Amino acid sequence: MSMERVREAADRIKRLEVQGATNVALTAMKALVEQMKASQVRDIDSALHEIAEAKEILFKSRETEPFMRNAIRYIEWGIARERWETTSQFHRLIHSLSEDLLNKFKEARDRIIEVGSKRVLDGSRVLTHCHSSAVSGILKVAKEKGVDFEVVLTETRPVYQGRITAREMLESGVRTTMIVDSAVRSFMTKVDLALVGADAITSEGNIINKIGTSLLALAAHEARTPFYVASELLKFDPQTIHGDYEAIEERSPEELWPQAPQELEIRNPAFDVTRRDYIHGIISEEGLISPHSIMEAVRRRYPWILEALGG
Amino acid sequence: MSMERVREAADRIKRLEVQGATNVALTAMKALVEQMKASQVRDIDSALHEIAEAKEILFKSRETEPFMRNAIRYIEWGIARERWETTSQFHRLIHSLSEDLLNKFKEARDRIIEVGSKRVLDGSRVLTHCHSSAVSGILKVAKEKGVDFEVVLTETRPVYQGRITAREMLESGVRTTMIVDSAVRSFMTKVDLALVGADAITSEGNIINKIGTSLLALAAHEARTPFYVASELLKFDPQTIHGDYEAIEERSPEELWPQAPQELEIRNPAFDVTRRDYIHGIISEEGLISPHSIMEAVRRRYPWILEALGG
Amino acid sequence: MSMERVREAADRIKRLEVQGATNVALTAMKALVEQMKASQVRDIDSALHEIAEAKEILFKSRETEPFMRNAIRYIEWGIARERWETTSQFHRLIHSLSEDLLNKFKEARDRIIEVGSKRVLDGSRVLTHCHSSAVSGILKVAKEKGVDFEVVLTETRPVYQGRITAREMLESGVRTTMIVDSAVRSFMTKVDLALVGADAITSEGNIINKIGTSLLALAAHEARTPFYVASELLKFDPQTIHGDYEAIEERSPEELWPQAPQELEIRNPAFDVTRRDYIHGIISEEGLISPHSIMEAVRRRYPWILEALGG
Amino acid sequence: MSMERVREAADRIKRLEVQGATNVALTAMKALVEQMKASQVRDIDSALHEIAEAKEILFKSRETEPFMRNAIRYIEWGIARERWETTSQFHRLIHSLSEDLLNKFKEARDRIIEVGSKRVLDGSRVLTHCHSSAVSGILKVAKEKGVDFEVVLTETRPVYQGRITAREMLESGVRTTMIVDSAVRSFMTKVDLALVGADAITSEGNIINKIGTSLLALAAHEARTPFYVASELLKFDPQTIHGDYEAIEERSPEELWPQAPQELEIRNPAFDVTRRDYIHGIISEEGLISPHSIMEAVRRRYPWILEALGG
Amino acid sequence: MSMERVREAADRIKRLEVQGATNVALTAMKALVEQMKASQVRDIDSALHEIAEAKEILFKSRETEPFMRNAIRYIEWGIARERWETTSQFHRLIHSLSEDLLNKFKEARDRIIEVGSKRVLDGSRVLTHCHSSAVSGILKVAKEKGVDFEVVLTETRPVYQGRITAREMLESGVRTTMIVDSAVRSFMTKVDLALVGADAITSEGNIINKIGTSLLALAAHEARTPFYVASELLKFDPQTIHGDYEAIEERSPEELWPQAPQELEIRNPAFDVTRRDYIHGIISEEGLISPHSIMEAVRRRYPWILEALGG
Amino acid sequence: MSMERVREAADRIKRLEVQGATNVALTAMKALVEQMKASQVRDIDSALHEIAEAKEILFKSRETEPFMRNAIRYIEWGIARERWETTSQFHRLIHSLSEDLLNKFKEARDRIIEVGSKRVLDGSRVLTHCHSSAVSGILKVAKEKGVDFEVVLTETRPVYQGRITAREMLESGVRTTMIVDSAVRSFMTKVDLALVGADAITSEGNIINKIGTSLLALAAHEARTPFYVASELLKFDPQTIHGDYEAIEERSPEELWPQAPQELEIRNPAFDVTRRDYIHGIISEEGLISPHSIMEAVRRRYPWILEALGG
Repeated sequence: MSMERVREAADRIKRLEVQGATNVALTAMKALVEQMKASQVRDIDSALHEIAEAKEILFKSRETEPFMRNAIRYIEWGIARERWETTSQFHRLIHSLSEDLLNKFKEARDRIIEVGSKRVLDGSRVLTHCHSSAVSGILKVAKEKGVDFEVVLTETRPVYQGRITAREMLESGVRTTMIVDSAVRSFMTKVDLALVGADAITSEGNIINKIGTSLLALAAHEARTPFYVASELLKFDPQTIHGDYEAIEERSPEELWPQAPQELEIRNPAFDVTRRDYIHGIISEEGLISPHSIMEAVRRRYPWILEALGG
Repeated sequence: MSMERVREAADRIKRLEVQGATNVALTAMKALVEQMKASQVRDIDSALHEIAEAKEILFKSRETEPFMRNAIRYIEWGIARERWETTSQFHRLIHSLSEDLLNKFKEARDRIIEVGSKRVLDGSRVLTHCHSSAVSGILKVAKEKGVDFEVVLTETRPVYQGRITAREMLESGVRTTMIVDSAVRSFMTKVDLALVGADAITSEGNIINKIGTSLLALAAHEARTPFYVASELLKFDPQTIHGDYEAIEERSPEELWPQAPQELEIRNPAFDVTRRDYIHGIISEEGLISPHSIMEAVRRRYPWILEALGG
Repeated sequence: MSMERVREAADRIKRLEVQGATNVALTAMKALVEQMKASQVRDIDSALHEIAEAKEILFKSRETEPFMRNAIRYIEWGIARERWETTSQFHRLIHSLSEDLLNKFKEARDRIIEVGSKRVLDGSRVLTHCHSSAVSGILKVAKEKGVDFEVVLTETRPVYQGRITAREMLESGVRTTMIVDSAVRSFMTKVDLALVGADAITSEGNIINKIGTSLLALAAHEARTPFYVASELLKFDPQTIHGDYEAIEERSPEELWPQAPQELEIRNPAFDVTRRDYIHGIISEEGLISPHSIMEAVRRRYPWILEALGG
Repeated sequence: MSMERVREAADRIKRLEVQGATNVALTAMKALVEQMKASQVRDIDSALHEIAEAKEILFKSRETEPFMRNAIRYIEWGIARERWETTSQFHRLIHSLSEDLLNKFKEARDRIIEVGSKRVLDGSRVLTHCHSSAVSGILKVAKEKGVDFEVVLTETRPVYQGRITAREMLESGVRTTMIVDSAVRSFMTKVDLALVGADAITSEGNIINKIGTSLLALAAHEARTPFYVASELLKFDPQTIHGDYEAIEERSPEELWPQAPQELEIRNPAFDVTRRDYIHGIISEEGLISPHSIMEAVRRRYPWILEALGG
Repeated sequence: MSMERVREAADRIKRLEVQGATNVALTAMKALVEQMKASQVRDIDSALHEIAEAKEILFKSRETEPFMRNAIRYIEWGIARERWETTSQFHRLIHSLSEDLLNKFKEARDRIIEVGSKRVLDGSRVLTHCHSSAVSGILKVAKEKGVDFEVVLTETRPVYQGRITAREMLESGVRTTMIVDSAVRSFMTKVDLALVGADAITSEGNIINKIGTSLLALAAHEARTPFYVASELLKFDPQTIHGDYEAIEERSPEELWPQAPQELEIRNPAFDVTRRDYIHGIISEEGLISPHSIMEAVRRRYPWILEALGG
Repeated sequence: MSMERVREAADRIKRLEVQGATNVALTAMKALVEQMKASQVRDIDSALHEIAEAKEILFKSRETEPFMRNAIRYIEWGIARERWETTSQFHRLIHSLSEDLLNKFKEARDRIIEVGSKRVLDGSRVLTHCHSSAVSGILKVAKEKGVDFEVVLTETRPVYQGRITAREMLESGVRTTMIVDSAVRSFMTKVDLALVGADAITSEGNIINKIGTSLLALAAHEARTPFYVASELLKFDPQTIHGDYEAIEERSPEELWPQAPQELEIRNPAFDVTRRDYIHGIISEEGLISPHSIMEAVRRRYPWILEALGG
């Protein structure tokens, strides 16, 4: 079967065996790279054709995964842009493009953690939601630096990702309190900072993140509590520039209530949209910036994200 | 042991075997009445003494239960106010006071259901949270009247009372959709009305209800969706007039995460406070009224709730 | 034909020959009184029966006319409450009830004008919408007192009632500026006060007035411009206590566009609902009061408006 | 010279030798009572005539002093309402009316302090502005009860009344921090409660207090910090019911800048108006109530404040 | 007479024979091009002189027409920047510049329609105001694509441009409802999207459009209804960068009331300013972007709009 | 002692003998330039070493002075970037860099004044706070142009900088009114524009200015009064990009109350942070721009401010 590695990765992503925007992006990119390395393409046309095929399979594996899609866009854009003539040159190019991208990932993440950790002050209390590796990274580094702070986190129904964050925080020695998602307004006036990750960023400057994030942002806004989003600009979704709505994945009703009565409709959207006006700042690889000018930052740092679209 | 019946009821209430403001109130009142009927008091002083003893036990069984407390206040107030001379007169008085109160309960509830059901319009969608017998009553009667509407409800963590409401709605033939608590903002622009019950009403016109209610109200306010509270004025807490904060019961951490790591602090407040400014109207036994003047309505309808305080 | 006078009045009201809450109320009451005076009722039962018949006809003539309905409720309530035994006593009672009511009308209006005129300050600019006899009365009296102020008013589509107000203001010597309805936000920061009348007041403290009033109130709120409503409490609609929505009359599409294309749907609601939170104060016969406690004021001043409902 | 005592008191009030709503009220009342005791009136007409004369002098001494005016209204109302026939009966009545009023003052203040002190929680920080004897009373009693809290207070330009409050707090052993008036927004998210007094309450439910109060309330609203006003309902200004604006006293430019350049206009309003919507509750002799229904509370507790107006 | 063609076009524009930002821009550009083609300029100085003369005439024809002004700026900028030596080269250059600009216009509009049409979802209701060729284009294309939606539109006083939009929508087979301008708040909770055009965009990110647009945006904001503006960045007014206020054209009082009383002042501003904070996104030739970063987008896409200013 | 001139300047800055962002920047730069001109550095390494030493001393002299820091960053960046080989070339380079910077300062200020003066309209009233040379410049030029306007200004506790502004305005012939800081809300509805300077701008688009500015901005927002900030982009603090909080200088308690009781804690922060959402526009050397895109403007105009950071 053609595209075997890619199909297998897409399946794992589809079955939610791979989770989290970063993991999905890395898995997809790795599969694409291996697939390409296994191929015998000799010219640009066949290369682009193969990549287009792989891209279609991977894009379909999850509704909203701009990080993964941007990774694939980067490979495709690099193939089309660089000069190469032989299969082995192609393989080397593929390899170097994937290394580049991994470096970009790593640099972006390191910078986010460095910048974000400065926002966590001594004696403060930070509220977070769900599990975000960027947020966990920020908080761990703040703790390592000796900042004395506490974390309040939601359990994050329906899949309880708050428990993962709780375990990470406790392992890092951070004093941690868990609440139900519904209690964020009650605890909002008792925290100094709200901090979440993101799954996608739109051209208007809104962010898409785990369901409940927009409620938390609204409650933070009501209480004048600074609300920050830690996210790579690599999560920018260029299709929103074209007017596309960011698709909101709807997951299995089973997650809510396995033995639900049959007639009951269960709606289980995994994400919601948080308005730029409720976001104090985006902690990104470009530093701490306003969400209102995010498209400009993406355009400057990752021009290929926007150029790729014309293709 | 003295006060046996009362103690036994208080225990059941404390162990959460009896739940819901109305059930707790009825159970406590019934126990008090039976206890008094079993007593041999002959004069007002001994009667008031006995009631004071029962009151103390029952008041301690739950932190915030103005409905139950008002029921006991009514009996106490009636005993002190009416003329009676013999034990049997006392027993008859106790009986008639409890009948009075049950009638007041019933009338209030009937009126709330009648008034509230008119607010549910044909072709509309109603969002609710947790389980409230008043809200369920309103929606069932609206359905019986032939109004064609749908219900969207939250699962209501940590104890999933939304499942109770869901079952009631489905049994009544209402098309019902369940969401996680975190999704209320996503669904707020798709509903026409938000409707919840209440556990207590304060002198400032705020309401105390299941944790998450204030978030829902905030999201309703943001979206200009009318937010109504269905509640008996009998749930008014006269102690708030005196400056007391309404105590917010904190329940077992087990409800959130039975196998939680030991170092994890879990906070599980059962209720939150919804500001009067986010409430379009209180659907009460006085009809549909503004929360801002609720103390005036209580004072007119149940003067003994306020008078009892002086005692 | 029975109820001839009443039917004739109801027809004129229905055909919009009689307009304005006050005129409609007076016309209906006059017709009812004449009809009753022409009747030969001898006992309370037949009297109430006749009134019920008249009431039905008049209530149907217009969807939302609490002022008119309250006038009829007053007569009915008076008949049922007073002692009378002969037809001539009945006629005298009818006469005196209608005189009472006219006096109440007059006193209320005089008080509103007196109170409201004090809110118009020297050197100020007042924005108004549509035509309201109460508002015009206030402004005329302020002018007569020598207050130097200007008026900005909307044309008030679709029927241009702003032209009536404009003529009245100019006749009173008030400097007057007219704008299209859409321009209220542009002029809001240039005025010191917004002042409108009302067609109905709900139990929640909201007011119903000419379409566009709620937009004006919203724009006033945005600009911190005080927004006042001049209205008799006699316009309180007791049915809203029972949960009924205030019906919003929909008028002829012809008013918008006589030669409209056939396939075009035209919606022409005559009124909208202004939230109590956008209203600084109600200028009423009880003086200047907060809309949030309006039901209490009605209950004290016109208990029969609420009592009548039981009937 | 007639009305000597009254004139002398009015002069001291005018020259600001007597300050604070309560002191002014007590001084004026005492002068009136003494003046009346020194008079030889024998009948109601001459009594009312004398009181009217004294009233005019005292009312003119300060623009906005509803507390003082209500005290005088009470005496006047009592004289007109009670039966008395001789001069000595008149003197006794005057005496007992003034005692009544002093008792009402005292009871009101005691209740406010009792209610308010319950709002100050252990471990909390309270922000206040200017000097208010009611607020100081609340805080002192809370301290005496053993509540562990801190106070943040403004210096309160131009006359630095914050220094008086600071001294009182320090004497009571309360940890106290002073800031400039401009810093209230910076400190708002670091406090748990904002608490101020009042000079007057309007029929719409707004309060008049030291200039800067409305800014503090606005900043509290922005930060979801509860903002409470401690005030006797005796400060209700019945003239606002009639549409009168509460006059805002303008004090000497000298207070701001003694050596100001001559061409500089200095505006020195002593008070501002805080909107009811920014006030969580009024701590009054009626307990903790919503400002929106304050007129109803006044009407019930002090009907003579409203009745006096008809006179 | 010199500048004949230009003068004639300017007159038609001034007399409102040419309407709509796009038509005015095209008419002015065409006249300028023809005038230049008819001229015998031989060098850059005389060319710039001629253009300056034409520019002055055309700029004066309408107060606020950044689209038209930018068109002229483009021609002027191109003449000064390109190398040419003979009259015929000049004529060819003029021709090619005008072709360029027409292409830019066309591309921009096509992109706006493509992007905007994706925002119109199946089963949705779109509210619009006035007539905008961009909005009509978006809606027609959405309909052609098979999207099933409805349109609600205002009549748009005083010149009823809503009727033009209504006819276009009906011709395209879109179900269309017309309301008075004052009814936008009543219908706001019944629509899913508000969509308008623009006449100008300022450097702060605000838009200028038909009077009433800012009210509609405010009502959309109050109801959390997404409010989008479809506009070419070519409508950006570079003079606002320099601090100039966007002039708001005031049109004839006759439009409001032909037979108005003489003493009546009529104010008829044609446009108002909508704050960037009420705008969810600008649908532009750069895709869907935030209004807050609009100047950056203009600077990147049309640098000559900003550069031209220095000249 | 090494770095004598620099140390001496740093001391004067520390002792507040030099005040105002611009003066501090000029003093520091001048000292640095003189120090460098007196040095005998021969190669880039020693030059950078010397500058680093001077930089450390100057940076420590004041907590938050981005303008001064950017000046030093510019010199450092220029030294590292240009080619030079001899000491005299170094001296010439130092000289020319400082001249460049002074020119940039001057151009920026001139442009701000030109742009800002267009925002002051005939017949308007402008509210300002503290003393800002940019604001004074704008107002003086507006006056010179013949614009007829008034100024309302705060005294600005604790150091009364409002008096400086008042004197400047009076000297320019502007009608000027002074109020206490607490009165800004009372006067907000009587002014047409609020205009202040800035000490620093953050990467999120917020501005840091004299304590009280954020309150004024909040009150302007509440009243829909446009609030503008006049500030050079040279005041942008690049460290905020990295997540650093802008440090808020805390000044001597003596400024508030020289004879304060010892136990009294006095907090005297000199600045506060104004949210970008309350700022209508920044009047800068890039013209009138939105605060949300300010980092993009800085990046384009002063790339060295951002590049310097890597060093």
